[in-house]
Amino acid sequence: MKPHPDYKEFKKLWPAIESYQELATRHGIGDVFQDNGGKILQVLLLTGLKNLPGREGNDAVDEDGYEYELKSVNIQLTRSFSTHHHMNPTIIAKYRQVDWIFAVYDGIALDEIYRLTPSDLEPYFQKWELKWHDGGDKDINNPKIPLKFVREIGEIIYPSVDLDPR
Amino acid sequence: MKPHPDYKEFKKLWPAIESYQELATRHGIGDVFQDNGGKILQVLLLTGLKNLPGREGNDAVDEDGYEYELKSVNIQLTRSFSTHHHMNPTIIAKYRQVDWIFAVYDGIALDEIYRLTPSDLEPYFQKWELKWHDGGDKDINNPKIPLKFVREIGEIIYPSVDLDPR
Repeated sequence: MKPHPDYKEFKKLWPAIESYQELATRHGIGDVFQDNGGKILQVLLLTGLKNLPGREGNDAVDEDGYEYELKSVNIQLTRSFSTHHHMNPTIIAKYRQVDWIFAVYDGIALDEIYRLTPSDLEPYFQKWELKWHDGGDKDINNPKIPLKFVREIGEIIYPSVDLDPR
Repeated sequence: MKPHPDYKEFKKLWPAIESYQELATRHGIGDVFQDNGGKILQVLLLTGLKNLPGREGNDAVDEDGYEYELKSVNIQLTRSFSTHHHMNPTIIAKYRQVDWIFAVYDGIALDEIYRLTPSDLEPYFQKWELKWHDGGDKDINNPKIPLKFVREIGEIIYPSVDLDPR
């Protein structure tokens, strides 16, 4: 076995990657190379939200203590946001208590961030509740929220003049 | 919402992250921030192996066409390698045909790479087969291979004088 010639380029870039991980670690992300860690970092830094580590899903909290549900999508792969692999009334009750932050990526590049309130999302919550009851109280596997809906209904918070104008 | 002061540091590092993703893309890794993509890149470049994208698991191939099974562990989290979530004789038969590359990480930093042959791993293959039959032909959920075993039995290929001496 012998290294690929590109290993030289890797070694040149690696110190910046280490700095990036150090920055991420300071913001509660233990491994940028798993579970979109290196992407979520940008959303946290842009919005000023703090990661809530050890919590199920990608929850965050602002400086006033309000919690948020974080969702992301990579438009190179799909046009809808995943939610929860075991959706049921308990999860939905939790979802009704917080605002949602939706981050839209093109590969690893952040394109847009939207904020939606629970009342914005109420049509989906009701649809999932109905489906759960109609299905004999069985958890729903990862119902989706379309990007189209998020773009139409949501408040755009990035790009914006306040947050890092482009 | 307003950006965290560290967002400045993020912006300084981001161009290197983009270059890192471009390098990864050239080597078949579409997203460094998922499924350890940014870590596997280093193993591929160091060993000269090529990614086999679209294949189940982390398979790779060398310049002579020989295939390899790639496994990795982060010693900050655990001391054993995951294998397969539905282990059965079909998977084991596949495992017996290739050498295995085990990568050992401390967080995102690569510490060691070991190479093991199918005969090195035969004790585990037989143990899993027995367990499968004894359990009524039911798939085994992710039996582990201890790091201790890999270090004792495996051929160390990194760090080494040939591959990027440290």
